[in-house]
Amino acid sequence: MSEHDGAPTPATGGKAPTIYDVARAAGVAASTVSRAFARPGRVNAATAERIRRVAAELGYRVNPLASGLPTGRTSMLALVVSDVTNPFYAEIIRGAESAAAEAGFVLLLIDAQESDRVERASLERALPAVEGLVLAGTRLSDSAIRMTAKQRPVVVLNRDVADVPSITLDNPHGMLVTAEHLARLGHRTVTYVAGPEASWADGMRVRSLREAAAGLGLRVQRVGPFAPTVAGGREAADALPEDLPTAVVAYNDQLAIGVVLALQARGVHVPRDVSVVGFDDIFPTRIVRPGLTTVAAPLRAQGRAAVDALLSSRGRPAPHTGKPMTLPVKLIVRDSTARARRGPRPSG
Amino acid sequence: MSEHDGAPTPATGGKAPTIYDVARAAGVAASTVSRAFARPGRVNAATAERIRRVAAELGYRVNPLASGLPTGRTSMLALVVSDVTNPFYAEIIRGAESAAAEAGFVLLLIDAQESDRVERASLERALPAVEGLVLAGTRLSDSAIRMTAKQRPVVVLNRDVADVPSITLDNPHGMLVTAEHLARLGHRTVTYVAGPEASWADGMRVRSLREAAAGLGLRVQRVGPFAPTVAGGREAADALPEDLPTAVVAYNDQLAIGVVLALQARGVHVPRDVSVVGFDDIFPTRIVRPGLTTVAAPLRAQGRAAVDALLSSRGRPAPHTGKPMTLPVKLIVRDSTARARRGPRPSG
Repeated sequence: MSEHDGAPTPATGGKAPTIYDVARAAGVAASTVSRAFARPGRVNAATAERIRRVAAELGYRVNPLASGLPTGRTSMLALVVSDVTNPFYAEIIRGAESAAAEAGFVLLLIDAQESDRVERASLERALPAVEGLVLAGTRLSDSAIRMTAKQRPVVVLNRDVADVPSITLDNPHGMLVTAEHLARLGHRTVTYVAGPEASWADGMRVRSLREAAAGLGLRVQRVGPFAPTVAGGREAADALPEDLPTAVVAYNDQLAIGVVLALQARGVHVPRDVSVVGFDDIFPTRIVRPGLTTVAAPLRAQGRAAVDALLSSRGRPAPHTGKPMTLPVKLIVRDSTARARRGPRPSG
Repeated sequence: MSEHDGAPTPATGGKAPTIYDVARAAGVAASTVSRAFARPGRVNAATAERIRRVAAELGYRVNPLASGLPTGRTSMLALVVSDVTNPFYAEIIRGAESAAAEAGFVLLLIDAQESDRVERASLERALPAVEGLVLAGTRLSDSAIRMTAKQRPVVVLNRDVADVPSITLDNPHGMLVTAEHLARLGHRTVTYVAGPEASWADGMRVRSLREAAAGLGLRVQRVGPFAPTVAGGREAADALPEDLPTAVVAYNDQLAIGVVLALQARGVHVPRDVSVVGFDDIFPTRIVRPGLTTVAAPLRAQGRAAVDALLSSRGRPAPHTGKPMTLPVKLIVRDSTARARRGPRPSG
C-alpha cells in the first residue's frame, strides 16, 4: 500500500512523478497541488481542475502514506440511503462512489435503515468530517434538510426541497409512456400501487399517471401506501379489488415484483390476466419470470450527477434555481405486459 | 440537526443529559467521556464500555455540532467490497454499518469495482482517516493485506490470510449438506461451477464438495472459473458438457441464477432435467422461478462480527490465532433441486 505503483512516464524521466513534477507542469506551488488533492475546497476550482488534469497526464498518484503530505486530510463526502439492502441503491452507490473516487474523495455511507432516529444520529457523527452530502434516500423533513444544507453543501435525489439542489427523474414522461403502452394494449383501467406515504416521487408518479391517463381514456385507481419492497408488493396484491384490474402500475420494481409473485401464487397469470409495470429497472427485473416491463431510471448516472453537483457547488451557497435537475427515463417493455383480457377475472 | 431530540429522562431532572451528567454517573472526567465517543481507541476498553452504557441509560446523545466537543473527531471504519452492485454485499454492508453506528462510528465504503488499482487508490485516501478496516471483498494480495494490517487493524472476510484476523463461513459443512441432499435425490454426478480464479472461498468449496462427494459415491466435475455474476452463470451454462449433468452446484447464487436462466432459455427444465444449487441465499434467490436451493450464509451477522472483531482489537496488535473465525451455514431447499432424471439429456 505504501509505494507508487503507477507506470513511470517519459514526462518524468522514467521515475514515478512527484508532487513537484505536477506543480512545475501546472505552474503552481507544490503546496497548492497538495491542497488541490487534500482540501480541494480551498483551491480555486479552475486551478484545482488544471492540477488534476496535469496530475492525471503525468500519472501522478496521491499517496498520503508515502509522501506525508502536510495537509493530508482525507476528503470525504457522505451518501445517505434509506435502506442499503434495497437493490435500488446499489447502482446509485456505484455511481456516487466512482465519481467521488475519481475526484479524490472517499465516500461515507449512511444507512438510515428506514429510521429517522438512526439517520440523524449517523448524520451528526458524519457532518464534521465531510465536505458535502448526497441524500439519496432520507427520512428527514424538508426543514431538517435545509438546516443540514446550511452547514454543508447538500444534494437531494428524487425529492424537491425548496432552496436545496435536487436531482429527480422525469416522472411525468415515465408515466406518460406507461399509460400510452397500456392504452395501446387495450387496457381501460389501471390500478396504481402506491409507495411510501411521504414519498415525493410517489406523489409525482400517481399524479402524472392520472394526467396521462385522462388524455387516453384510461381510468386510474390507487391502492396503498405500501413499503417499497417485495413484501409490500405481496400485501398490495391482497388489496387489489376482487374483480382484478387488467393492469397494475407500481411505484417501483420491488412492489411490482411482489405483486407478480403474489398473483402467480394465486394462479393468476401475468401478463395474460393482469399486466404489471414497475419503475427503476433494478437488476432483479431481468431475472424474474416474466421479465418485468418497467420505466428505466439512470440510477448510476444519478449517483454520479449528485456527486458532480456537490463538487461544483463546494464553497458556494446552494444555487436557488427553484427547479430540480431532471434526468430522462424510458420504458423498457419485457414480458409482464400484454393485451388486456376481455371481461372480469376473479381474484383467484 | 442541531438540537438534542432525545426524550428527557428523570435521571437528569427532565432536561437532556449533558456530557457532565454522563461523567458524574460514570465516575470519570468529562474529557474522558468526550474521548470515549470521539476517539475510543484512546480510552481503556472497559472504561469506554462503562461510559457508553451509562450514556445510553441516561439517554445522552453525542452531538458534535451542538456541543462543540473539543476532541470531536468523527470516528471511522472502512469497509471494502469488490463490487457494490453485487447483492451479496448488501446484507454485509447493512450488518457492518449498523454495528459501526451502534458503537458511535461512521462507515466509509470503498467499492473496488473489481479493480486492484481502484481499490489501492481508495484505500490510500481512506487509511489516514479510519481506525480500522473490514475487507469484505478485496483484490489485494496477501502481502498487501498484511502491510495494510500493520498500519490499521484489519479484519478479512471469506479469506484466510496468515497473521490477519478473518471471518469465514463453514464451507465444508455447506458442501457436505449439499452433497448429501443431491445424493439422497439419486444424483450420481455433479458439476461444480467455479467462481473467480483467485477466490479462497471458491477453492475451499470445490475441495469440500469433492471430499464430501467421495464418501457418498458422487462424482464431481468442475467448469470455470467464471465471474461471480448472473452473466458469468450464463457463460457457465454454455461450458457444461453436451450430455448435461443431472446436478449443478455453483460457487454462488448469482452464478446459479445465470445457469438456471440460460438452461431455461434452451428449453431445459430446472429441476426436472437439471438440479441447481447456489450459495449465500441472497435476496434474489426468493424471487426467481424456481426458487433457488442454496447454502444460506449469515451475511448480516458476518458484517456485524467483522466490526465487532475490529472494535475489540483496536489499539492491540492483530491476534495470531492462526485460525479464522467460522460462521455456520445451512442448506435451504427450495424448488431448483429434484430427483435425478434417468439417462442423458441433450444440451438443448
